[in-house]
Amino acid sequence: MMPSPLRRLEANPIITRDAVPGANSIFNSAVVPFGDGFRGVFRVDDQQRRMRLHAGHSADGLRWEIEPEPIQWQCDIPAIAQFEYGYDPRITPLEGRHYITWCNGYHGPGIGLAVTDDFATFTRLDNPLPPCNRNAVLFPRRINGEYVLLHRPSDMGHTAYGDIFLCSSPDLTFWGKHRRVMGRRQPWEGTKIGAGPVPIETPEGWLLIYHGVLTSCNGYVYAAGAALLDLDEPWRVLHRAAPYLLAPRELYECVGDVPNVVFPCAAVVDEASGRLTLYYGCADTCVSVAECGLGELIAFVKANRSAD
Amino acid sequence: MMPSPLRRLEANPIITRDAVPGANSIFNSAVVPFGDGFRGVFRVDDQQRRMRLHAGHSADGLRWEIEPEPIQWQCDIPAIAQFEYGYDPRITPLEGRHYITWCNGYHGPGIGLAVTDDFATFTRLDNPLPPCNRNAVLFPRRINGEYVLLHRPSDMGHTAYGDIFLCSSPDLTFWGKHRRVMGRRQPWEGTKIGAGPVPIETPEGWLLIYHGVLTSCNGYVYAAGAALLDLDEPWRVLHRAAPYLLAPRELYECVGDVPNVVFPCAAVVDEASGRLTLYYGCADTCVSVAECGLGELIAFVKANRSAD
Amino acid sequence: MMPSPLRRLEANPIITRDAVPGANSIFNSAVVPFGDGFRGVFRVDDQQRRMRLHAGHSADGLRWEIEPEPIQWQCDIPAIAQFEYGYDPRITPLEGRHYITWCNGYHGPGIGLAVTDDFATFTRLDNPLPPCNRNAVLFPRRINGEYVLLHRPSDMGHTAYGDIFLCSSPDLTFWGKHRRVMGRRQPWEGTKIGAGPVPIETPEGWLLIYHGVLTSCNGYVYAAGAALLDLDEPWRVLHRAAPYLLAPRELYECVGDVPNVVFPCAAVVDEASGRLTLYYGCADTCVSVAECGLGELIAFVKANRSAD
Amino acid sequence: MMPSPLRRLEANPIITRDAVPGANSIFNSAVVPFGDGFRGVFRVDDQQRRMRLHAGHSADGLRWEIEPEPIQWQCDIPAIAQFEYGYDPRITPLEGRHYITWCNGYHGPGIGLAVTDDFATFTRLDNPLPPCNRNAVLFPRRINGEYVLLHRPSDMGHTAYGDIFLCSSPDLTFWGKHRRVMGRRQPWEGTKIGAGPVPIETPEGWLLIYHGVLTSCNGYVYAAGAALLDLDEPWRVLHRAAPYLLAPRELYECVGDVPNVVFPCAAVVDEASGRLTLYYGCADTCVSVAECGLGELIAFVKANRSAD
Amino acid sequence: MMPSPLRRLEANPIITRDAVPGANSIFNSAVVPFGDGFRGVFRVDDQQRRMRLHAGHSADGLRWEIEPEPIQWQCDIPAIAQFEYGYDPRITPLEGRHYITWCNGYHGPGIGLAVTDDFATFTRLDNPLPPCNRNAVLFPRRINGEYVLLHRPSDMGHTAYGDIFLCSSPDLTFWGKHRRVMGRRQPWEGTKIGAGPVPIETPEGWLLIYHGVLTSCNGYVYAAGAALLDLDEPWRVLHRAAPYLLAPRELYECVGDVPNVVFPCAAVVDEASGRLTLYYGCADTCVSVAECGLGELIAFVKANRSAD
Amino acid sequence: MMPSPLRRLEANPIITRDAVPGANSIFNSAVVPFGDGFRGVFRVDDQQRRMRLHAGHSADGLRWEIEPEPIQWQCDIPAIAQFEYGYDPRITPLEGRHYITWCNGYHGPGIGLAVTDDFATFTRLDNPLPPCNRNAVLFPRRINGEYVLLHRPSDMGHTAYGDIFLCSSPDLTFWGKHRRVMGRRQPWEGTKIGAGPVPIETPEGWLLIYHGVLTSCNGYVYAAGAALLDLDEPWRVLHRAAPYLLAPRELYECVGDVPNVVFPCAAVVDEASGRLTLYYGCADTCVSVAECGLGELIAFVKANRSAD
Repeated sequence: MMPSPLRRLEANPIITRDAVPGANSIFNSAVVPFGDGFRGVFRVDDQQRRMRLHAGHSADGLRWEIEPEPIQWQCDIPAIAQFEYGYDPRITPLEGRHYITWCNGYHGPGIGLAVTDDFATFTRLDNPLPPCNRNAVLFPRRINGEYVLLHRPSDMGHTAYGDIFLCSSPDLTFWGKHRRVMGRRQPWEGTKIGAGPVPIETPEGWLLIYHGVLTSCNGYVYAAGAALLDLDEPWRVLHRAAPYLLAPRELYECVGDVPNVVFPCAAVVDEASGRLTLYYGCADTCVSVAECGLGELIAFVKANRSAD
Repeated sequence: MMPSPLRRLEANPIITRDAVPGANSIFNSAVVPFGDGFRGVFRVDDQQRRMRLHAGHSADGLRWEIEPEPIQWQCDIPAIAQFEYGYDPRITPLEGRHYITWCNGYHGPGIGLAVTDDFATFTRLDNPLPPCNRNAVLFPRRINGEYVLLHRPSDMGHTAYGDIFLCSSPDLTFWGKHRRVMGRRQPWEGTKIGAGPVPIETPEGWLLIYHGVLTSCNGYVYAAGAALLDLDEPWRVLHRAAPYLLAPRELYECVGDVPNVVFPCAAVVDEASGRLTLYYGCADTCVSVAECGLGELIAFVKANRSAD
Repeated sequence: MMPSPLRRLEANPIITRDAVPGANSIFNSAVVPFGDGFRGVFRVDDQQRRMRLHAGHSADGLRWEIEPEPIQWQCDIPAIAQFEYGYDPRITPLEGRHYITWCNGYHGPGIGLAVTDDFATFTRLDNPLPPCNRNAVLFPRRINGEYVLLHRPSDMGHTAYGDIFLCSSPDLTFWGKHRRVMGRRQPWEGTKIGAGPVPIETPEGWLLIYHGVLTSCNGYVYAAGAALLDLDEPWRVLHRAAPYLLAPRELYECVGDVPNVVFPCAAVVDEASGRLTLYYGCADTCVSVAECGLGELIAFVKANRSAD
Repeated sequence: MMPSPLRRLEANPIITRDAVPGANSIFNSAVVPFGDGFRGVFRVDDQQRRMRLHAGHSADGLRWEIEPEPIQWQCDIPAIAQFEYGYDPRITPLEGRHYITWCNGYHGPGIGLAVTDDFATFTRLDNPLPPCNRNAVLFPRRINGEYVLLHRPSDMGHTAYGDIFLCSSPDLTFWGKHRRVMGRRQPWEGTKIGAGPVPIETPEGWLLIYHGVLTSCNGYVYAAGAALLDLDEPWRVLHRAAPYLLAPRELYECVGDVPNVVFPCAAVVDEASGRLTLYYGCADTCVSVAECGLGELIAFVKANRSAD
Repeated sequence: MMPSPLRRLEANPIITRDAVPGANSIFNSAVVPFGDGFRGVFRVDDQQRRMRLHAGHSADGLRWEIEPEPIQWQCDIPAIAQFEYGYDPRITPLEGRHYITWCNGYHGPGIGLAVTDDFATFTRLDNPLPPCNRNAVLFPRRINGEYVLLHRPSDMGHTAYGDIFLCSSPDLTFWGKHRRVMGRRQPWEGTKIGAGPVPIETPEGWLLIYHGVLTSCNGYVYAAGAALLDLDEPWRVLHRAAPYLLAPRELYECVGDVPNVVFPCAAVVDEASGRLTLYYGCADTCVSVAECGLGELIAFVKANRSAD
Repeated sequence: MMPSPLRRLEANPIITRDAVPGANSIFNSAVVPFGDGFRGVFRVDDQQRRMRLHAGHSADGLRWEIEPEPIQWQCDIPAIAQFEYGYDPRITPLEGRHYITWCNGYHGPGIGLAVTDDFATFTRLDNPLPPCNRNAVLFPRRINGEYVLLHRPSDMGHTAYGDIFLCSSPDLTFWGKHRRVMGRRQPWEGTKIGAGPVPIETPEGWLLIYHGVLTSCNGYVYAAGAALLDLDEPWRVLHRAAPYLLAPRELYECVGDVPNVVFPCAAVVDEASGRLTLYYGCADTCVSVAECGLGELIAFVKANRSAD
């Protein structure tokens, strides 16, 4: 078995609650390169434990300025305009704009969708799916002419099941062609799985980093795994690593508001060096980073793919 | 309070397991006028307790011939073509064709959609929604140019929550604009609610008959209620009767595979007389009928609407 | 073992939902001799399944007139004056007045207390106990100078445990001296027990008829048992019958909104004949009556008392 | 599909609680031909709902005399001699004696084992298996020189899982070689399965009638199925009928202490006629009988065997 | 939002298990100024995990001597005199004496009440409330002539709900006039809330510090909040801070027998300086202290009060 | 109360995941003296979280070499030869050979049994017990001519109950004479208990170190206790310490894949010095060691034995 190539930064956690006055915790957040720096959308739980999303920026991707106030969403759809809560954002660059997906409260946990051009103004589109659903991630380009969204059907709470599905859309408003992509397979992901960062297009397929959950007698343990999906039929899994890629080991991953959680939400690939930087939430409390070569990661998936 | 105008037939139950050789039970089924008679799609659980759908026909809507073999679905979408199970069908006449919706097994309970022109050949379309979802019912015409589907997000099993939502589609393939229509309000419907027959267009609004579930210390009790939805914005509830319309009282409703269930799936209105004939499943075992005037039923909803 | 002396009336059920227009069910209700006839307070669930209390009267104790409207409670304590819901009433004649106790909704199920002199005007007193509590029954005289109340601490729902406790009061407002009276002992009462009718004073002690609940794989089964409590220290159990006194057997006890329930709420003893008439709810749907001699019942308790 | 050949007797239920004074219910009981009549061991729950076993006899197998007192077990093993409770007996004729197996209370539900020569004296042997276990049935002869016992590992209560296993013994005291025989396969048996009557040796294999449980939203539904096991390697299933053989339909099967239960515990084959008489408990309340030809039943299993 | 003024001591935790030989843990304990020092009643779980209460004293409130043996309670009420278990004590100075309340085992978790004049002899009074109840705290003076007790109705175990109620008494024996004070409002307290230290009388109202519980997918998280209650009608909430005051962050709060718990039980205000010293249990393992100005804390409540 | 004599090593944890490439965790493992060194069987969960057993050796019992590949089991019983999973091994020296017992996957968690002479070749014997069962430990000699096995009946998952039973065998294949040894008694072991290391024969009886589990609102807490069993009738408990012997306190016991676990699996007694070395798993993540004199431990049990 080839070991995981990911290396945690010494500086972890790179973002703590101190980054926002009055924050209880900052974790499970998304970043993208933007201009000559980086932009991000951050899950900031305040000291009421309300779950909200804040914008932020960084010159180097490691030292972040996060807005002290939550994003004020623009929305011209009255029925859904009230922002109840939002968490676990992802950012997809797509056709020159940036789309945000997150878990959005609307009569239960569902999927929110918004677009921004400048990370200053964020405009909400209609919710793409009914509740109950979480962990939706948009692909960074159309596939066969259609937008494609990974997501996970859930129930109303700490759901004890969950597979990864996808659906397609001609226009980002109406969605259909629902397909199951992956189910649970190994013990480390035996309770549920969900898409993590935006899939990364590679010659070997779409590289999907995802989280998987194991249920111990003391609760959930969240780890991260990886798979390669077919470029044209992304509901087809080409390779899937049997072992996890990253699991809770460091104190900042094992101790916090929810012990034993690593939850990846973003991955940035440096074109020049091929270095992949993975951003992940730790113990529902802070944000850390781990790195490896993109090629190393693909090799890991292919070398460790499971037999069935 | 105006009492429920519904009157059960003396002949109830009108359909029992004897109608299909080898059936364990026939219930929660849909019928429509067709030609000079009636056609139906029936939930027939066989003696393995597999849940399947059978076609049937009737001259008078009360005495039914049901095909001994399940419907053989045509499907040219390989990913979903395997029919795992199906139950609780509804039939919507729409633009000259008949559409069937049902609870369809695809990696969990979801919504199936098919079309027929003759009740002999049934062709499946793509599943409109991801799992977990049940009780989807299509409106019988476009509203503001779009098809509209009522449905209920659920979990994987005997879900202990559920409100009625709707979504829209330009083409019956891609769906969006998700809105919540109704939540639970009265004790008799305190656990979950779900759409019943295809909504009936009236000058007062769309008449929606739905089921509601109460949880006693000995399980679920299913009753039926009624509401009027706005003709143009069908997610707006105009009036909603506080009391139920029909609840388990007769032995054939109280005793059976699942005690204490009335579950309405179809309503036929005779244009000439204004008589509404409601078909409902009883105790997950058989099918019964109750009748009233359509005007009586609308008056019931308006007279008994709840304050909040 | 001496068999139960109780004999069901042929006329059972003596009260059905037909007694009140718009009722879903009438059950678990209390009656007392009053003047030259009888008065009662009835649990009437309406067709919203709201639980409410109605007054009623009868010349012979078997044929009842029940008010079509719920009792309008007088209450000069603003904090609790709103009547949320009420069920399972008992009536205690005490010092020339009649006191009603019931399960009263106030931020959870608790105990309500009211007094009437004429069964026309009912005045609420302060709730004697905090939630969560049910099945409170007041003794019909002071004991050692204090009022005494039997009750059962519970949780918020279909509580899976419950023993009988009592408390005392100098003034019906402030309560203390909490003592446990009886726990669960036999399989038929293995889940929980609760006081039934107002205890009957006899030379052998207070005769307490109570309900006990067994949990089968298909839910709760409610039966009735009997015990004798010490006259002066009523938290001391003198004798307690090991077998039940009455359990669901008749169709009207086994089939209904909650199958398999007999729930005694009142017992009337005819001084002249010594005949005890027991009123009990059936399947959460209707009211029935069973009879025996008071002496027979005491003999049953003493002959069948359990060893431990 | 070949329909079930079983025909219920008109006289059902053949045994009710009236057969034993003070019984709450008599059900899930075993009978065997003995001498020129029949003997039986009956589950009699008394009115404390204690579960106990009574002996009985009959001239014709249909009209039964049941002893009013429970069996007094002989036992010279002090550690287990205390009889806590017993239910769901089976009787296996074996090497000229009759062995009783049942669910026996010993620090949880386990398996009891006893032997009788005359149905007057019953001597307990050591419990063959640790708790938690139920539904043990002994084969009526040694197989490959060893005694063989079918059983079902369980938990402490209303277990929500259960497959059929077997084990072997050289001496009826020490048991080993544990093998799984059958798991759950069809929806009607999707929650758990357990052996029913003593397997019947036929040229086609051991005929095993068993019960299977489906979980509805209102509890468990118990039905009966059938399979053929290899004569020499009885953990190998040769054929297994996909549909059930018998399911709750009659009022005496659907209404009672546990609604919707048929639970077979004994089958008697008349050598001359080939008629199989099946004794089964109904709704945990009474005993009924259904009949068919043994050949019909084997044909049913083979004609309806499932593909996988 | 004004941030919490509380500052943890560097010396935390100030009390660990080492303070009592054979202790498993010491936490959730109460202290008061007494004479020229301090006295306390401490929850000491021993190495059987029995929950017991020990007395202790301190010169400075930070360095404590705790008695190695549990308190020997005086009690002249035989029915309740057996001390089953006790935990989470509070101490209320009242009319020149000191009253202890705690969670007391009496046929389930209820409320214990005792009085001491010297912290050497402790005399139990009757239990003020029936089970199931926890977290009772007595006000430090009569209000409108009556003693007032805050408490929380519960169930038998790790209760998943809970609001704060109060009741009144003329004599500390009989209690009534039950009123709900506060329910759950913010996500950090969404599962249950319970009174913490004895309310502090201020010109702005009674300052109530309380605990609130959030349920994550890995269990409960206990934090502390604050509110101001009306001086004369203490069931009226004047102001309530929306954010929490203190939540688990330090390793000694996040790691221990129950991870992620801060549980305040006592607050001492230094009249001269206005400094409030808060004593709180950490991770069900040890005791820590945090401080702020009383005025700061009141300002925090008023500045951060929630809109609804 | 005499305090626990156990002293943790400064070097703890002595085995971490680093000992095996690709291991997620190494814990709950067994060691024995062998030749002039030590041998062990280790629970190694890989990064798929598959649970497998590896052999290892050590010169001093503290520094271990663990085989990078799992044990390849020899098995000539086809029905059980497939190794599904294995965890929590124990090693019993018996009649010159070494027997391994572990929790073995065979249609649920059961008990596996194997024998080795050299810790290179391991041969599986038949599973001694049916599922569901865990924590089986073989005594190191025959007692009254029979082999004796301690074990714990369980359910399929994170079982919430469990007592220690034993059974006997003439030949290690067939098992019977099931007896309960110990139930739960103290709060620290209130959920379940299970045998730990192989019992140690002493003149005072068999010294049994076992684990006990407490359920907090945040999950299970595993501690270790001790008892003395009768030498000839080992189901008789002679003395049992009321307090635990070891409970989670160090960071390596409180933080890890399952927080708050100490789980003893092996104890080695140095004959010369009488020093007992206890090996225990920590937080389901690593292995630690604690030591004391054997005499000290026996004195602890006897001095702290509980009254009942």
